[in-house]
Amino acid sequence: MTKKEYMKLAVELASAAGGQTSPNPQVGCVIVKDGRVAGVGTHLKAGDKHAERHALEMAGTEASGADMYVTLEPCSHHGRTPPCADAVIAAGISRVFTASSDPDPRVSGRGIKKLLDAGIHVETGIMKEEADELNRRFFHYVTTRKPYVTLKIAASIDGKTATSSGESKWITGPGSRLDGHRLRHEHDAILVGIETVLADDPELTVRLPEGGIDPVRIVLDNELRFPLQAKMLQVPGKTIIFTSERGGKDKERLLKEAGAEVIRLSSFRIEPEAVLEKLGAVSIGSLLIEGGGTVLDSFVRAGLFQEAVLYQAPIIIGGRNAVPAVGGSGMERLSECPRLVLKHVEQLEQDLKLTYRNEVQKECSPEL
Amino acid sequence: MTKKEYMKLAVELASAAGGQTSPNPQVGCVIVKDGRVAGVGTHLKAGDKHAERHALEMAGTEASGADMYVTLEPCSHHGRTPPCADAVIAAGISRVFTASSDPDPRVSGRGIKKLLDAGIHVETGIMKEEADELNRRFFHYVTTRKPYVTLKIAASIDGKTATSSGESKWITGPGSRLDGHRLRHEHDAILVGIETVLADDPELTVRLPEGGIDPVRIVLDNELRFPLQAKMLQVPGKTIIFTSERGGKDKERLLKEAGAEVIRLSSFRIEPEAVLEKLGAVSIGSLLIEGGGTVLDSFVRAGLFQEAVLYQAPIIIGGRNAVPAVGGSGMERLSECPRLVLKHVEQLEQDLKLTYRNEVQKECSPEL
Repeated sequence: MTKKEYMKLAVELASAAGGQTSPNPQVGCVIVKDGRVAGVGTHLKAGDKHAERHALEMAGTEASGADMYVTLEPCSHHGRTPPCADAVIAAGISRVFTASSDPDPRVSGRGIKKLLDAGIHVETGIMKEEADELNRRFFHYVTTRKPYVTLKIAASIDGKTATSSGESKWITGPGSRLDGHRLRHEHDAILVGIETVLADDPELTVRLPEGGIDPVRIVLDNELRFPLQAKMLQVPGKTIIFTSERGGKDKERLLKEAGAEVIRLSSFRIEPEAVLEKLGAVSIGSLLIEGGGTVLDSFVRAGLFQEAVLYQAPIIIGGRNAVPAVGGSGMERLSECPRLVLKHVEQLEQDLKLTYRNEVQKECSPEL
Repeated sequence: MTKKEYMKLAVELASAAGGQTSPNPQVGCVIVKDGRVAGVGTHLKAGDKHAERHALEMAGTEASGADMYVTLEPCSHHGRTPPCADAVIAAGISRVFTASSDPDPRVSGRGIKKLLDAGIHVETGIMKEEADELNRRFFHYVTTRKPYVTLKIAASIDGKTATSSGESKWITGPGSRLDGHRLRHEHDAILVGIETVLADDPELTVRLPEGGIDPVRIVLDNELRFPLQAKMLQVPGKTIIFTSERGGKDKERLLKEAGAEVIRLSSFRIEPEAVLEKLGAVSIGSLLIEGGGTVLDSFVRAGLFQEAVLYQAPIIIGGRNAVPAVGGSGMERLSECPRLVLKHVEQLEQDLKLTYRNEVQKECSPEL
């Protein structure tokens, strides 16, 4: 096997732990001695051993003189576990191949330096793009201290989420809805507006045949209209309600008694920026915004999202007064609209899943 | 080469004449003698020789004892040209392979029967699906006597065609707009509502680097508000304005003097069904509906379309009051919405082109 193939295996090991390592990154590791795999590891859970440790343990004395493929630069500092770079040196690894660098600019390169100083041969950047992609949410969080925001939009091909009479169940098919639950599992938190709570009384839990991790539930509610009997407060897991200075104090107390956390912002209206700051401060590294249309619009207008996932059902609903997937006040000028980059197209039964990134792209629209 | 490969060449020959044979079908023909191609032909234009004739002429005396691959059952009746079946028999062709059957149920099979009666070996249905696809518009017209209707929708990923301030130039990129002109070339006629004429004053011509055929322009205009100075009346080609009993008689006369054709329907409002009947009667076999949102909605609600082409730009516009791609009154119930079948996905620079067919599909939406 080539270096790239060993690293690909390490990336796959990292990928398998998707959604379960937050706030830590996903990392995979493969140790190779004389052309034979001697150890494999993947980081499973924050606080648990790093990928390199698992692989070194499996390799045992075989680690001496072996090659290590690891998707992220080994750490050089004492966190909840001792530095991996030290363990790699102590085990007698002779060559280390890495994919991603440590995203934190303050410590990036230190792990590598430690290995080099110990006389280990180091090569970096192998399959970097694939490894960076895997940890895009983590890297965003580490560098900005705000959650990576994904917009989820489920709509007809003409961009509606409900008919003019308000009917919305179901526009997308079961394949899309199942995939939507996987999206939830991959995010630390899920956010909706109070209108969605009042209209649908959703649980916002992960319901997958294979199980999954329920994200923290976030509701934006300027005036604290959140019902005390809402299903969200009956199911396990945490619910955080954001409110403005307009939210009633008595209602706040009642909601807290009912098990919700309430975060009051000192502004007339909840601003997306302030929400992301608060969530970042409580270690929420990734946030899935499920709607409704007014909430999606507020994050779009603020430019505060990194990704948009569109589940598009092959139906046409029509209607000036049907419910648009992205509502609110919207953009006035086309030049202000975020221009996205299409990353993936996938067919889910009859629906299309389109994944877009909010990245800078080349402008390219001369007149025809 | 195999039978399928020869037929594939015949299909490609037919395909090359896309948009130029109406109201006739596209047909390609290949004659093979002793494993060598002896003649090829394609039908170029209504009134001109059929594909079989071109191929037989090229083959000359080589046609005797040869195989013929033709994408459509040879005709058996005298139209503007004498029956091809007779010519095939006279030339001494020994085997005939066909793809599509004649769509007209009254004559379907007669060409084949004539060949069989003359002792020719006949095999039908080779690459039938590809050949039927090529002539789907023609087959629809021949069997229903109404044009095959394609909806063209150009929108943001949230289904808007203009911002709340009305800005719409440009949402899609140059690649999509160029492709839109190819769509025009492929259709006999192009239809817009009067609001589009008043807002944009479009020419509705085909502007392609390689040239193209301008479709007939159709405008729906209940009250004959069509401006006499509209660009559409300055450019070459035919403009047909549909009006209702509400259209002014004087304005009708002025529009006719200015070069437009006016068709008055004896109803309070122009109904899509009546428009398609009238257009079918004047040999318009395919119709591209370009909008605006109200016109698109009226054809969607009537269920009167066969195909929808969506040019989707990777931007989010948002806004309750932005202009939806499909407006009007829309569908009330999800169960009434047309459920389409996705046929093609194509990336045009940054945009996606999604081609849907309005065909019956399996219902498949149990609760998750």
